[in-house]
Amino acid sequence: MTSNADLIARRNRTIGPYSPLFYAEPLQFVSAKGVWFTEANGDRYLDGYNNVPHVGHANDRVVRALSEQAALLNVHTRYLNERVVDYSERLLSTFRPGLDRVFFGNSGSEANELALRIARQLTGSTGVIVSDYSYHGTTITLAQMTTGLKTREPLGAHVRTLRIPDLDSDPRPEAEVLAEALASLDASIASLQEGGFGVSASLFDPLFSTEGMPRVPAGLVAGIVDRVRAAGGMVIADEVQSGFGRTGSHMWGHDYAGMEPDLVTMGKPMGNGHPMSAVVTSEDVLDRFGSRNEFFNTFAGNPVSAAVGEAVLLEMEAEALMPRAQELGGQALARFRELASQHGDFVRTAKGTGLFLGLDFAVDGVPAPHLAKQVVEAMKARRVLISRIGRDESVLKVRPPLAFGAAELPILLDALEASLAEVRV
Amino acid sequence: MTSNADLIARRNRTIGPYSPLFYAEPLQFVSAKGVWFTEANGDRYLDGYNNVPHVGHANDRVVRALSEQAALLNVHTRYLNERVVDYSERLLSTFRPGLDRVFFGNSGSEANELALRIARQLTGSTGVIVSDYSYHGTTITLAQMTTGLKTREPLGAHVRTLRIPDLDSDPRPEAEVLAEALASLDASIASLQEGGFGVSASLFDPLFSTEGMPRVPAGLVAGIVDRVRAAGGMVIADEVQSGFGRTGSHMWGHDYAGMEPDLVTMGKPMGNGHPMSAVVTSEDVLDRFGSRNEFFNTFAGNPVSAAVGEAVLLEMEAEALMPRAQELGGQALARFRELASQHGDFVRTAKGTGLFLGLDFAVDGVPAPHLAKQVVEAMKARRVLISRIGRDESVLKVRPPLAFGAAELPILLDALEASLAEVRV
Repeated sequence: MTSNADLIARRNRTIGPYSPLFYAEPLQFVSAKGVWFTEANGDRYLDGYNNVPHVGHANDRVVRALSEQAALLNVHTRYLNERVVDYSERLLSTFRPGLDRVFFGNSGSEANELALRIARQLTGSTGVIVSDYSYHGTTITLAQMTTGLKTREPLGAHVRTLRIPDLDSDPRPEAEVLAEALASLDASIASLQEGGFGVSASLFDPLFSTEGMPRVPAGLVAGIVDRVRAAGGMVIADEVQSGFGRTGSHMWGHDYAGMEPDLVTMGKPMGNGHPMSAVVTSEDVLDRFGSRNEFFNTFAGNPVSAAVGEAVLLEMEAEALMPRAQELGGQALARFRELASQHGDFVRTAKGTGLFLGLDFAVDGVPAPHLAKQVVEAMKARRVLISRIGRDESVLKVRPPLAFGAAELPILLDALEASLAEVRV
Repeated sequence: MTSNADLIARRNRTIGPYSPLFYAEPLQFVSAKGVWFTEANGDRYLDGYNNVPHVGHANDRVVRALSEQAALLNVHTRYLNERVVDYSERLLSTFRPGLDRVFFGNSGSEANELALRIARQLTGSTGVIVSDYSYHGTTITLAQMTTGLKTREPLGAHVRTLRIPDLDSDPRPEAEVLAEALASLDASIASLQEGGFGVSASLFDPLFSTEGMPRVPAGLVAGIVDRVRAAGGMVIADEVQSGFGRTGSHMWGHDYAGMEPDLVTMGKPMGNGHPMSAVVTSEDVLDRFGSRNEFFNTFAGNPVSAAVGEAVLLEMEAEALMPRAQELGGQALARFRELASQHGDFVRTAKGTGLFLGLDFAVDGVPAPHLAKQVVEAMKARRVLISRIGRDESVLKVRPPLAFGAAELPILLDALEASLAEVRV
């Protein structure tokens, strides 16, 4: 293995110094299996962060499906191909009735682009509502509605943002918090209509992951959906983070959040790292878009991607990953709550559902990202990988592969307990 | 295997009836190896069309690299990863000096989006020049500049199109044809500037593949580049079709065409079917974009994609695919020219370079797409797959995997000769 310094120098001369790296001292892994990474010297790190290797790094079933199908046939969908139909049927069977058609793509960006493109065409409007701290992809259109990381593009004139309230940090009564958020949305919709943009779509992650998993008022999601529909817009659920059983209780984040979207986009965990994504929608929407556009995506829905996607669903079922996430996530959340209460001087609250958990760091009501960062580095020193989310980057992000097991949970929790004990406010 | 009728019915109920299929009676393959597809009944078809399986369907080296790396490690570039640096160095070594940095993506659409996004930011302009019969991808921004297939979106107000002249069908003197095209471009640039859009970029396939491989006047490409640069714009070469040795004489279409682009985009053949793409540019451009944007693409540049991309380059070298394409392509073109002259009543001319060849069908100077279609179907009846391109869909498109060999060439040429002999004008 090349030394980190040499490799970073070569990396800077090829993909450049701006391509982000985790940690003050980056990590270089040579292999990974299940929920464990291995460094060249044999040191192992527990993966408490990555959601892309959903059913586990280098999962046997997925690697076998990938290898066997790649050795057999990999071609676009302009020839008939049973594999893509088998997979489509299996994927769609996980959705409620009415969400029964699928467009495939190669990345979450492609899925969100297509959902927005469909919404623009079908509504004849361009206005979009997103959260004021969110991220949905890398394209020009998506950069114009990026609020959760630095982009050179200003917010598009046709974009309005909604601050997602968090009852964990907002002391006001729930009804007041809800009313304020919906009044702000009403004003945004009115402003889009006055500006001549109209409302084409709302685009939200049903879990509000990037936002830091706020505890939202009851009725907020339903209120958004009703208002967007009433304004003629379509509702897009971005399931790139919240889907595929992440919540433990529901296969899809929109079902967890009790919303009924017109379009559902998905990516990251779908192929366990193989580049693939999808937009799921209704027959009516597919007909209205499909009949008016020659739409074709070369790599999308190829039999290798279909075989891989199918293997992910089969593995989730065979290993009962969703119920396991619910059980382990429940245990983890209970311990997170204990830790939050033990460290009430700098932890505001425990957050999350299923295998997506957080600890919100604040001192005297002021977000404390520097302390959250300390804990992320302290966890790394204990060879457990986690990260941070939220507008202040003050919420610990614990979002391991769904293959995370009962044997690993104590390792993560004990490391967290020890790392929190080191924090000096 | 499911019957075609049953499979089409299931396909219609999942990915929908608009997802395009080749041929009046579509084909269903169960496997492919090298340049041959196999149907369930054992019938084999020679692939004279697909450029994605560049080094051959189910190529052993590529499948091995894919399988081995997927079993070892597949993760994003936020941890250090030597594989992506090795591959980047190898890929960049095929470019002229000054094109020495790379951004990875997952599809040609993502690559063209990023190139346009970079050009917009660095020039502060939005205007784009494309050909009036071209296709660069599926996103909203790219749909607004799609001229070569049906999209619901009108051409963007910031988009101007250039008709690419073809000396094979334009009887006027070359200098006159050139002057007209450049005058049209000058008018477009002036119009973009008057409209307040300015010029951010030109986006062309250096081979003008979708346009039907026109024989362009000497000086056209240089004239475009000079004018776009003088107007403050950046020059993007879309190498999704023309790259990776397709021309036989040059690794990259822009070198074949004698142009020096600021940004080069590539996709389809890059991963032999594995979803991957890239934008290659200069250090200066990378610095100016990278320093101002948090840019990250989850799947892009993962070690599996890097291993696959590397295997494609190694296989090209080991099998000398580029010189072979030049030799076989030269032989093929000679025979295409003979056939064109034998069938002068409906074939205007033979076209192409390397392993990208065409026959331009016209009767009394009028494009004859119906005859070209007859030949495509007649080739299929002889179990050889080809297609059509060009604004009139009147140019036969023969663009096999670069792994096409000396043994296969006579099969394709004999089938073409026999199919042409059946044409009744």
